[in-house]
Amino acid sequence: MDDVLRELADVIEARKNASVAESYVASLYAGGIDAILKKVGEEAIEVVIAGKDGDRDALVHEVADLWFHCLVLLAARDSHPKAITGELARRFRISGHEEKAGRW
Amino acid sequence: MDDVLRELADVIEARKNASVAESYVASLYAGGIDAILKKVGEEAIEVVIAGKDGDRDALVHEVADLWFHCLVLLAARDSHPKAITGELARRFRISGHEEKAGRW
Amino acid sequence: MDDVLRELADVIEARKNASVAESYVASLYAGGIDAILKKVGEEAIEVVIAGKDGDRDALVHEVADLWFHCLVLLAARDSHPKAITGELARRFRISGHEEKAGRW
Amino acid sequence: MDDVLRELADVIEARKNASVAESYVASLYAGGIDAILKKVGEEAIEVVIAGKDGDRDALVHEVADLWFHCLVLLAARDSHPKAITGELARRFRISGHEEKAGRW
Repeated sequence: MDDVLRELADVIEARKNASVAESYVASLYAGGIDAILKKVGEEAIEVVIAGKDGDRDALVHEVADLWFHCLVLLAARDSHPKAITGELARRFRISGHEEKAGRW
Repeated sequence: MDDVLRELADVIEARKNASVAESYVASLYAGGIDAILKKVGEEAIEVVIAGKDGDRDALVHEVADLWFHCLVLLAARDSHPKAITGELARRFRISGHEEKAGRW
Repeated sequence: MDDVLRELADVIEARKNASVAESYVASLYAGGIDAILKKVGEEAIEVVIAGKDGDRDALVHEVADLWFHCLVLLAARDSHPKAITGELARRFRISGHEEKAGRW
Repeated sequence: MDDVLRELADVIEARKNASVAESYVASLYAGGIDAILKKVGEEAIEVVIAGKDGDRDALVHEVADLWFHCLVLLAARDSHPKAITGELARRFRISGHEEKAGRW
């Protein structure tokens, strides 16, 4: 699954300099960091509303929207989803780390 | 980093019924859906603040927090991160899908 | 100042049943409770961004947007800004309450 | 209920330099602007959740929390609730403005 995030990060990176008329990603970057942050915030609200409703399809749709806009934000700050999965692996001591996860 | 999201989903599932005193995940579930939704919302605000600051380490930390709590929410609604990466792969036509991504 | 909120609540109440083409308030109600909640959430994100920037005019603009959409939400749930100012007066023991405010 | 917002702004201003141990307001200021912004964001999420539930008492409680923390934010940025009600009066042409409100 992490592969999808990596490939999606590549797609986003490639679209950064596309024409705004042709690419939603390019239009987000053209709007500047505040435009990207607003989208992250808005999508989080939609996750909360869908999570409250308990409609699983809507929840999946909204979490996908949220994560996608997080990837756009990471790219805008010269970061990458592998930094996120790396951080999560470190915290939970999974993926090759010998120690058992703590009290999570 | 084989598949951190999948392994983390397994960890979360296993902790659902752990003792609240021993597990943060268990304490989230004990708080009910609203407690989980509040954490998702709070972490999104922290992502926005860190994204505004442009501190890359803080941003990675906060996005990891946000995604972790999204995984907890998905598990609470009997869903799974593979539904999210599947949705993203479908939208962006990556990971084995033959067609090229559209105007994203 | 509370008067403005009361008058604005009256304006909102009067617009509830206006034509959607002629009234932004009517269009919000036509969108249902989720549309109103999304606007409240979005405006809160814009307050956070403006508050981070420290641009006072932008902050005033965004807080006004947020409070306006809160008034729309209150009306949608058959409540009123006087319930909010009443709650704040009670908590802070102001406006005719004899006791001094506690440790706020 | 003469002017709760104005009185509350005075209370907040007076508490700015109180001891952190004795005053919640002082503890918010001691935490810096990010701590205040996080509270505004968190309270907005709680408004969304309460608004979704349709529990009027909970909604009033959460909107009061949100507005209170907005007042703290305004004071942190050397602004005042009268700037908000002034902006709303101007937009909606109420409170002594002769023109009728537009297409709101």
